[in-house]
Amino acid sequence: MNGAQSLIQTLVNGRVDVCFTNPGTSEMHFVAAVDKVEGMRTVLCLFEGVCSGAADGYSRMTGRPASTLLHLGPGLGNALANVHNTRRAHVPLINIVGEHARHHLEHNAPLTTDIEAIAWPVSDWVRTIGDPMTVAEDAADAIAAAQQPPGQVATLILPGDCAWNESSAPAPGPAVSRPPAVEDTQIRQIADVLRRGEPCVLLMAGPGLLESSLHSAGRIADVTGARLFSDRPIQRWQRGAGRVPIQRIPYPVKDAVAALDGTTHMILVGTVPPVAFFGYPNTPSLLAPDSCQFHTLATLEEDIPAALAMLADELTAPPEPSTLSKLNRPDLPTGELIPDKIWATIAALMPEEAILTNEAITSAAGYDRYMDGGPPHDMLTLNGGSIGEGLPLTLGASIACPDRKVINAQADGSAMYTVQTLWSLAREKCDTVTVLFNNRAYRILQGEMLKVEADGGGSKSQAMLDLGNPVIDWVHIAQGMGVNAWRATTAEEFNTQFAAAVQTPGPHLIDAVI
Amino acid sequence: MNGAQSLIQTLVNGRVDVCFTNPGTSEMHFVAAVDKVEGMRTVLCLFEGVCSGAADGYSRMTGRPASTLLHLGPGLGNALANVHNTRRAHVPLINIVGEHARHHLEHNAPLTTDIEAIAWPVSDWVRTIGDPMTVAEDAADAIAAAQQPPGQVATLILPGDCAWNESSAPAPGPAVSRPPAVEDTQIRQIADVLRRGEPCVLLMAGPGLLESSLHSAGRIADVTGARLFSDRPIQRWQRGAGRVPIQRIPYPVKDAVAALDGTTHMILVGTVPPVAFFGYPNTPSLLAPDSCQFHTLATLEEDIPAALAMLADELTAPPEPSTLSKLNRPDLPTGELIPDKIWATIAALMPEEAILTNEAITSAAGYDRYMDGGPPHDMLTLNGGSIGEGLPLTLGASIACPDRKVINAQADGSAMYTVQTLWSLAREKCDTVTVLFNNRAYRILQGEMLKVEADGGGSKSQAMLDLGNPVIDWVHIAQGMGVNAWRATTAEEFNTQFAAAVQTPGPHLIDAVI
Repeated sequence: MNGAQSLIQTLVNGRVDVCFTNPGTSEMHFVAAVDKVEGMRTVLCLFEGVCSGAADGYSRMTGRPASTLLHLGPGLGNALANVHNTRRAHVPLINIVGEHARHHLEHNAPLTTDIEAIAWPVSDWVRTIGDPMTVAEDAADAIAAAQQPPGQVATLILPGDCAWNESSAPAPGPAVSRPPAVEDTQIRQIADVLRRGEPCVLLMAGPGLLESSLHSAGRIADVTGARLFSDRPIQRWQRGAGRVPIQRIPYPVKDAVAALDGTTHMILVGTVPPVAFFGYPNTPSLLAPDSCQFHTLATLEEDIPAALAMLADELTAPPEPSTLSKLNRPDLPTGELIPDKIWATIAALMPEEAILTNEAITSAAGYDRYMDGGPPHDMLTLNGGSIGEGLPLTLGASIACPDRKVINAQADGSAMYTVQTLWSLAREKCDTVTVLFNNRAYRILQGEMLKVEADGGGSKSQAMLDLGNPVIDWVHIAQGMGVNAWRATTAEEFNTQFAAAVQTPGPHLIDAVI
Repeated sequence: MNGAQSLIQTLVNGRVDVCFTNPGTSEMHFVAAVDKVEGMRTVLCLFEGVCSGAADGYSRMTGRPASTLLHLGPGLGNALANVHNTRRAHVPLINIVGEHARHHLEHNAPLTTDIEAIAWPVSDWVRTIGDPMTVAEDAADAIAAAQQPPGQVATLILPGDCAWNESSAPAPGPAVSRPPAVEDTQIRQIADVLRRGEPCVLLMAGPGLLESSLHSAGRIADVTGARLFSDRPIQRWQRGAGRVPIQRIPYPVKDAVAALDGTTHMILVGTVPPVAFFGYPNTPSLLAPDSCQFHTLATLEEDIPAALAMLADELTAPPEPSTLSKLNRPDLPTGELIPDKIWATIAALMPEEAILTNEAITSAAGYDRYMDGGPPHDMLTLNGGSIGEGLPLTLGASIACPDRKVINAQADGSAMYTVQTLWSLAREKCDTVTVLFNNRAYRILQGEMLKVEADGGGSKSQAMLDLGNPVIDWVHIAQGMGVNAWRATTAEEFNTQFAAAVQTPGPHLIDAVI
């Protein structure tokens, strides 16, 4: 058994059985080994940022790490932005990065780079395999590192000769570390804070947005009056009918500050004191009032759903929360197509238990307006702020959950970064619909220009925020990569197309001209 | 004058007057300043890898650095592969990377990364601006670093508040360092080696492939019998009718070894002893015979054209080389479309002084077959081995030389990495024609699988090298981004389309189905 085979068998033993791949020469033995070892599914991507973003989506929906296969340092570079996003989502990921054969490294061939140096800024764990006989052990360590609660990025660098030479037997999958429970004393201290009756916010992130966590948070709010907020980055929000509704901290700093105004205590659940996405002139970085006191119920490394349930019980809250969202699908809109109507249609027609990958950015407000009344669903956003993850998250979520429709609410500017994803969606026959909010601009930057107080009204400046010259024809692009596509210019057209997309398996894209 | 304005004025003072941009919030003051300062041309790109690859193409054709504008660490990550390629091409590049305002950094907002750590593996010089008052000085240092012979990658990190706060006056452009001349004693030593009449190769790279260098090399070959080779990475090869023809070291290791067999002395001109691109089992990494002695005529840091001229004179070679390529345009081919015929058509119809960006990879053999007999032209390849630079090089070369037709010989798999370039070509109305060699495969990897001796015939392995499921419709993709496009399935169709593309200004793409 060669090193590549030992590596793949060890990954499969550790239940790491999906790999998003974009290989090159140095990874050919890994590629060949996929047919020699049972149980590894490979998903070919035509750009490495698709691999890493898809792995993020997969891990969020399964709780298990996906792997990527990347070609040397530059391939890791291409994946880097979405590795960053994955790391900020605090989910497990294993990058397998091919490296030159050890005897070839000293010759500084054109593709030679310091792969470890490229990996460290976006990884929690990095190791270069030093000997073919340690491949299995190194792979098992990578799995263990990735699964370290709440989930880490592990980058394992595989020299070509460590892949092709004879290796040792595969290792068993390492034990999965469970997140530890929060101490009772901590629960009681938080309960004491909440019992004071002072203005309090529970700020939730990570697994704090799963249905069971929200259920407990609703019970806590019922007996304490605490307000429930989610942090801005959303790992996986179980929302819609039958779930406890909570608010999301607004993106504009002044709105966020206003929303949190008067808060005396903030109970942190899987997060830290909330901060602005960017620093602006004459604007605070911290969003909570200066006088606010922070109390951590549970960190991301701890068992968040259990901590919330313990806290609700400690507060002797009734077993069921008083407020659950009710199914309230809007009527189908008519007339001019605007983002709000698109969201109304999505809420009206979306199937139960859909997954919604949301990179709609400036077109996303309608999500909050309608989706508590939509059917139960999971919503994912990018967590590291680097746009271009909406399409890859869609691919990964669909590979993870092939029986669930994945709806991708996608802005045009961000779609372009990883547009190659469309081809993988077609190849894998993913059951997805991308709603492309086509506003022909980096619309968010038009707003940010004002917020940073820049005098950016000049023609050259404005041209740098404009995607309308030439207009991008998303129908052509999607069809060019094998994805069924329509263009909608009215609400009626969008309704018809979205209904068809929901009812027809396979990947679809609607170019919604807004 | 704020920091952004001082920065841009300093760049313009240093003749860095083109910026390939993909900005975000932290770069908005830079964007606004482009309208406040005269002389900076901005070219919007929809993905950062387009920015860095285009800057490489621009620098190769002008000898002056282009700049990029990138959004924080992940934006630099997206640019990284083509920054690596630029660095390996040894041409100047200045990356301007936005960073959070200094007061905001400590809050670890989602987009926070260690930008310097991401930059160092692909940069020769990195600096984070520490104070708005030093922006001009830092920018001048970046220009000087980039222009350090032969050309370096300088990455300058600009915190938002250093862009928006009041700054000092712009700095003058630093003096351009000229590459130093090679010592006479060195020239005489090399001449002595050549006079021995032993089997000798001149291996040329960097400016060694410019017309004047080749002219001198031809003179040297005439009087010494030395054979002339180019290294595999090509910065800028001035080839075609009227130039001295030389060979390129073959890519397959066994062919390269055979080509260099029997060489007793290798004279290195802007390069180092040649190495294989990858390490393979049972295959040498070094391409020259073990007994070959290496002698460096000039390093990339030195004045290569002058050194070659001095050497030719030292050898009292006649002033004109005996062998110059003659214009020998082939007949237009007919029938089934294969790569060789495509190259014949290009050689038959290409205008004089075209620029040829060559990322045709496995379809590139016809270039060597026909192009010594083609009209004089400049040919560029990627230098760092990370595919996905052909389209960006085309954009950058066209921005640098708007009066010259740029012909992009482009493989399909590598085109997809930076497919967003097509939009910028349309936006800038570049006079280019992309010949898309569409073989529906990572064809090179099918060959590499054999070379690494992997047993990769299994169906899952082969599927990872196949781009035919679904077939990519390049006409649709190009049209979707505003580029005129045709599909050719016969040589006659290709002839007609290529002739039209050459005669009609503006960007074109021909999907050549081979």
